[in-house]
Amino acid sequence: MAARDATHDPALRSWVASAQAPGSDFPIQNLPIGIFDRPGEPARGGIAIGDAVLDLRAARDAGLIAGDAADAAVEPTLNRLMGMGRPASAALRRQVSALLAEGASAASLAERILVPMRAARMRLPAQVANFSDFMASYDHCARLGVRRDPRNPLPQAFRHLPVAYHSRASSVRVSGEPVTRPHGQWQAQDGAIRFGPTEALDYELELAIWIAGENALGTPVPMSRAPDRIFGYGLLNDWSARDIQRWEMPPLGPFLAKSLSTSVSPWIVTAEALAPFAVAAPVQDPPALPHLDSAWNRAKGALAIRMTAAILTPRMRAEGAAPFTITDTQFARMYWTTAQMVTHHASNGCNLLPGDLLGSGTASGPEDSARACLAEIGLTGPVTLPTGETRRWLQDGDEVIFRARAEAEGAVPIGFGECRAVVAPAIAWPD
Amino acid sequence: MAARDATHDPALRSWVASAQAPGSDFPIQNLPIGIFDRPGEPARGGIAIGDAVLDLRAARDAGLIAGDAADAAVEPTLNRLMGMGRPASAALRRQVSALLAEGASAASLAERILVPMRAARMRLPAQVANFSDFMASYDHCARLGVRRDPRNPLPQAFRHLPVAYHSRASSVRVSGEPVTRPHGQWQAQDGAIRFGPTEALDYELELAIWIAGENALGTPVPMSRAPDRIFGYGLLNDWSARDIQRWEMPPLGPFLAKSLSTSVSPWIVTAEALAPFAVAAPVQDPPALPHLDSAWNRAKGALAIRMTAAILTPRMRAEGAAPFTITDTQFARMYWTTAQMVTHHASNGCNLLPGDLLGSGTASGPEDSARACLAEIGLTGPVTLPTGETRRWLQDGDEVIFRARAEAEGAVPIGFGECRAVVAPAIAWPD
Repeated sequence: MAARDATHDPALRSWVASAQAPGSDFPIQNLPIGIFDRPGEPARGGIAIGDAVLDLRAARDAGLIAGDAADAAVEPTLNRLMGMGRPASAALRRQVSALLAEGASAASLAERILVPMRAARMRLPAQVANFSDFMASYDHCARLGVRRDPRNPLPQAFRHLPVAYHSRASSVRVSGEPVTRPHGQWQAQDGAIRFGPTEALDYELELAIWIAGENALGTPVPMSRAPDRIFGYGLLNDWSARDIQRWEMPPLGPFLAKSLSTSVSPWIVTAEALAPFAVAAPVQDPPALPHLDSAWNRAKGALAIRMTAAILTPRMRAEGAAPFTITDTQFARMYWTTAQMVTHHASNGCNLLPGDLLGSGTASGPEDSARACLAEIGLTGPVTLPTGETRRWLQDGDEVIFRARAEAEGAVPIGFGECRAVVAPAIAWPD
Repeated sequence: MAARDATHDPALRSWVASAQAPGSDFPIQNLPIGIFDRPGEPARGGIAIGDAVLDLRAARDAGLIAGDAADAAVEPTLNRLMGMGRPASAALRRQVSALLAEGASAASLAERILVPMRAARMRLPAQVANFSDFMASYDHCARLGVRRDPRNPLPQAFRHLPVAYHSRASSVRVSGEPVTRPHGQWQAQDGAIRFGPTEALDYELELAIWIAGENALGTPVPMSRAPDRIFGYGLLNDWSARDIQRWEMPPLGPFLAKSLSTSVSPWIVTAEALAPFAVAAPVQDPPALPHLDSAWNRAKGALAIRMTAAILTPRMRAEGAAPFTITDTQFARMYWTTAQMVTHHASNGCNLLPGDLLGSGTASGPEDSARACLAEIGLTGPVTLPTGETRRWLQDGDEVIFRARAEAEGAVPIGFGECRAVVAPAIAWPD
């Protein structure tokens, strides 16, 4: 439950001039954290500012930041920093904000502590301890459920708890790594059972929720403590093979349709940075049971984040076309809040660990333009691209590009950077 | 695909006399590996022999075992040894077999290298990287599916692939740690949505399958290489809250009904030790698709392991009664083999890591006595115990005790030790 403080002041400016560029994802009010390296150098923490990365190791070694959080932030993953809890990361944010603010003496050390963003190779921000994926958008469920049962399209528990499944941690990859078209098994329309490269590869536009701190196994996390268990947010592409999914899913849920790969953005926008974008949660009907309810959650539990998905096909690339936006949606409309997800997840005593990753679920909204996966879009026919190409599902060479931006009255907008990946062709089945 | 060798010779005897005790789980033909410690000492690898543990660190330090595998086996988890692949663990087995064989000079060092089993505290054998749980017993599925659809009780894909779901790694615990009754949400018979401690806690008797080696993301594991990806086997209790499960499961599968806790036995019976117990796999109808089929799998893909589950209630404990066996089943009848599980799991390119854990799925057989969870047993009414008590579901204070033994003509039987845990009462919901 971060409050607004001096680090959010809209008048605050950085001595890094590009942080003030109109439309920059990374003004000084943002300060997202990630892990980067350069050839021959160890991976360590960095903070995005304008078109540069503040090298947290260099800043720490120069004595510009100090303390346990600064020490943890120079490691090759953020797991230990995440484990220290929100007060530690909030303290680091205040130090970095002061360091990068206009007038700070650190400006004279720019060459030593800043790395051009184009020179930094971004890594997975944390070793993913566990990955759980939610299904929290009413519109996503309602659209896809209509095929199953037009009169009861929602899963039976949808209005009573944030439905979720355990997903695969080992196959989470950072933005930029290609996604190989997976082999799999499904039932063809003629009833035959097929095995081969999926013919229905899809994206799902979600937020990544990174967990802070740890609760012991057997110890739930009540709503009063749930917000402090969220370290920050990124973008997440929950790649899905729909033919495989339909066949394997009953009754144990998605398995190989999801574990082919999951892409996350490298920058984690901290819970502190998002404080100005907290808005009222959608009204739930019926009201959430008491253990999933709080006054704070109703008033401030949602986040105003505009999210987009764009596609860039090989032909568009050859023709020099810009990526074409096929999803434009708003995270604040998710039926369940991220605090409710945390409390539900731990309600059986499940221990949530630093480095745990939650997927918000496909963030679809009610408008056709807010359909956040091809499974939904395709219900009214394939997408037509500016090149005249059409897409029912993703083709080899297609690149999917997610972006997001938190926007609110009286606050400087902040961005999430990108989560992007190209679909690579299936490999030959090995002997 | 371990072959029989000198380490399996039924005539082989150990200088550790208790290894020859009739009915011992741990004769010299077994040599299961685990992690143990004693107060004030670091955790390290150990191998069970009779009623003792061979301290692998002490043996290595005394120069009795050597090499990369021996070095890895003294670490506080088996992950690195698992990562070295089967040839490494097979080499370690041969060294340890020679060291413990009657006539070996190491006998004079018994006091230095053996720890009484009762003095060793067993730990989780590996840091669980990922945990996936299968559903591979025809009888388990058919019995429980009848309620859903009497004419089509099996999941649609059951005969075509080994159905599975991603489960939770963080909540896996070693035998002996209590299992706290979880809170959860479900729909009562009157239709009301309830939240509170589960009223339908169940066990599921499964084998644990521990993964060796690693395949890169995007790289499947064909059937020819699947057997070598199995480091070894243990017992696994996939604790399940049935009321929570029924409510949360559609359509994404089990979530909080499973992540409350999963118990595994501390000793891993290696794939090498189980070579004499390989038997023909059940005939599959229809035949498995080519990528899930091999001549070796049909001839040798199953394992002859008798598995039991027993219960010990507080009243039985007070009266000095022995645990009462409520499940007695045979693993060789599972519809899918463990090699098929590995190949299926990686068929989409999913990377399986050292320390990954697969649950075999509830190992039920066709006889009433072979029903391997209370959900099945209860279909014909509650269990009646020798004290006159009955159980539809587990009560607080009940202990569930799994045991297993591999048995085959011409081979010395080998045991798995125990996987046991007591049900602890629910805690008060926190504020």
